[in-house]
Amino acid sequence: MNQKTMNGSMTASGRWVGFRKELKVLDCTIRDGGLMNSSYFSDEIVRAVYDACADAGIDYMEFGYKNSKKIYSPDKFGPWRFCDDDDIKRIIGDNKRDIKLCAMADAEKSDYKTDIIAKENSPLDMIRVATYIHQIPLAIDMIKDATDKGYETTVNLMAVSTVRESELDEGLEMLAASDASAIYLVDSFGSLYSEQIRYLMAKYMRAAREFGKEVGIHAHNNLQLAFSNTIEAIVDGANMVDGTLAGLGRGAGNCYLEMLVGFLHNPKYRMRPLLKCVQDYIEPMREKLGWGFDYPYMATGFLNRHPKSAMEFNESDRRGHIVEFYDEINK
Amino acid sequence: MNQKTMNGSMTASGRWVGFRKELKVLDCTIRDGGLMNSSYFSDEIVRAVYDACADAGIDYMEFGYKNSKKIYSPDKFGPWRFCDDDDIKRIIGDNKRDIKLCAMADAEKSDYKTDIIAKENSPLDMIRVATYIHQIPLAIDMIKDATDKGYETTVNLMAVSTVRESELDEGLEMLAASDASAIYLVDSFGSLYSEQIRYLMAKYMRAAREFGKEVGIHAHNNLQLAFSNTIEAIVDGANMVDGTLAGLGRGAGNCYLEMLVGFLHNPKYRMRPLLKCVQDYIEPMREKLGWGFDYPYMATGFLNRHPKSAMEFNESDRRGHIVEFYDEINK
Repeated sequence: MNQKTMNGSMTASGRWVGFRKELKVLDCTIRDGGLMNSSYFSDEIVRAVYDACADAGIDYMEFGYKNSKKIYSPDKFGPWRFCDDDDIKRIIGDNKRDIKLCAMADAEKSDYKTDIIAKENSPLDMIRVATYIHQIPLAIDMIKDATDKGYETTVNLMAVSTVRESELDEGLEMLAASDASAIYLVDSFGSLYSEQIRYLMAKYMRAAREFGKEVGIHAHNNLQLAFSNTIEAIVDGANMVDGTLAGLGRGAGNCYLEMLVGFLHNPKYRMRPLLKCVQDYIEPMREKLGWGFDYPYMATGFLNRHPKSAMEFNESDRRGHIVEFYDEINK
Repeated sequence: MNQKTMNGSMTASGRWVGFRKELKVLDCTIRDGGLMNSSYFSDEIVRAVYDACADAGIDYMEFGYKNSKKIYSPDKFGPWRFCDDDDIKRIIGDNKRDIKLCAMADAEKSDYKTDIIAKENSPLDMIRVATYIHQIPLAIDMIKDATDKGYETTVNLMAVSTVRESELDEGLEMLAASDASAIYLVDSFGSLYSEQIRYLMAKYMRAAREFGKEVGIHAHNNLQLAFSNTIEAIVDGANMVDGTLAGLGRGAGNCYLEMLVGFLHNPKYRMRPLLKCVQDYIEPMREKLGWGFDYPYMATGFLNRHPKSAMEFNESDRRGHIVEFYDEINK
């Protein structure tokens, strides 16, 4: 694949066999998948994902959210909605592998000042701040807080497909000047086509590179474009790339981590440990959790809407009655 | 989407809302899907697909193959491996809708001189000749035969991902000078990335346009790229575009016809009749026929191999043991 050039221009041959060593891969199986099961995963599964990612040479693993127990009751959500340090330590035990650990903190949903402790006392290496466009001032405070505590910090600007261009430009300018080391292009609704990814990536790259930051990509599969849009972003210069095992994630799910490894050709990555984990732990959850491409998610993707209504439909006994959903959403 | 320009260059906005009226959509559900069930489809299903495509404004429907009964025994293959005129007439009855009908004739597998009769006596409008690179002289005779009999004729150059570039250039030159009205870029093994599609499309467009021909695209989903590669080809100028309902087709299947309609924005196309047919007739076949993205197909896609070994694996009781397949194919 053509990962060597920044602008994606291709010549006849000779740019397909190499790899881009600066590019880092992040597994967010447990974090994004936690949106399908209220972050209830058994220790065995989380440990299997951790070991598989470490065996496969993946650069980062995201354990879950650092979100508020006042907003998400621990009676109703599993441990990976909070990522208490003790929970993470129980998983990794004395088995600290060569993979960086991270958690996501949502703007307005995280008691970050108290719940995120100094890095030197935490098993976490990186904090990913997630923000909508209107929360950017808060996100910048969260980024500063995490950076000051010693973490590598990145920021996900969510639902960019719904953001007005002038506001996006302003928001990117603010995030580019923040302490975050990377800004993620996030297609929350899985509604962007590759040309739109290319256009947005050019904008993100301009903003980020001026301040020496990287750009990341987080894609969803509502239109079966998560993998291809991730590739497009890589060609356009993204060096932080999200994937999940078997695409496990909200609604239509994410870019398949194991396919990303197949695409990248970086010899440090290995596909087999990921496939083994998918076979033994992830695919067995598919029927119950029900993630992955399906028509209701396609419909919300085409309409650039949050997948919530599609998720509710697919959790109801009307699942499979795709024309009903299509009629409702187009009313 | 950006379908208006030939070169895919995008400006900030204003090219996403329109559509390209020259672009024609072809449904090959029964033809390509017939590779998963030896072309046994009930009349009810074929009629449902026919009506759905006509209701949805699809331009062409491919009923199946025009292949030899000496090679494919009618005892072992259903009627849509042969597309006898009487079988097609039985489906459409007096209900000839506003959709062109076609069938595919494989080089070396078709008794085309006798089995394809003059168009004026046939319900078919178009013959699609399928050829591997080494069969092109035969394919050109088939194209001439069908054209002389009055048919619109197109040609699918299969498995292009395995063709040496110098041979491809020579083959395209020959096909461009033939009587075919369109040359299809066919990613038989589902192994091409979008940049490779772009590169090949430029080559096909150069060859075809010199002789006033169109270029078509036929994509497979081994790497979850069938839809995105079809979009890429459209941006690059493809005006004949293949899809199948719910992606039904060999192995990992094809580009979803209903998603193509969602992308295209041409008001003549309608998604709802396609979804209704998918819901009532196509998805109910999925468990038995077992098409669609799966890891063995991914493995053959990454290795640029025919999906045959993956299909055999998935038809065996080892289905799901994806690491076994991975180990075997990488031996």
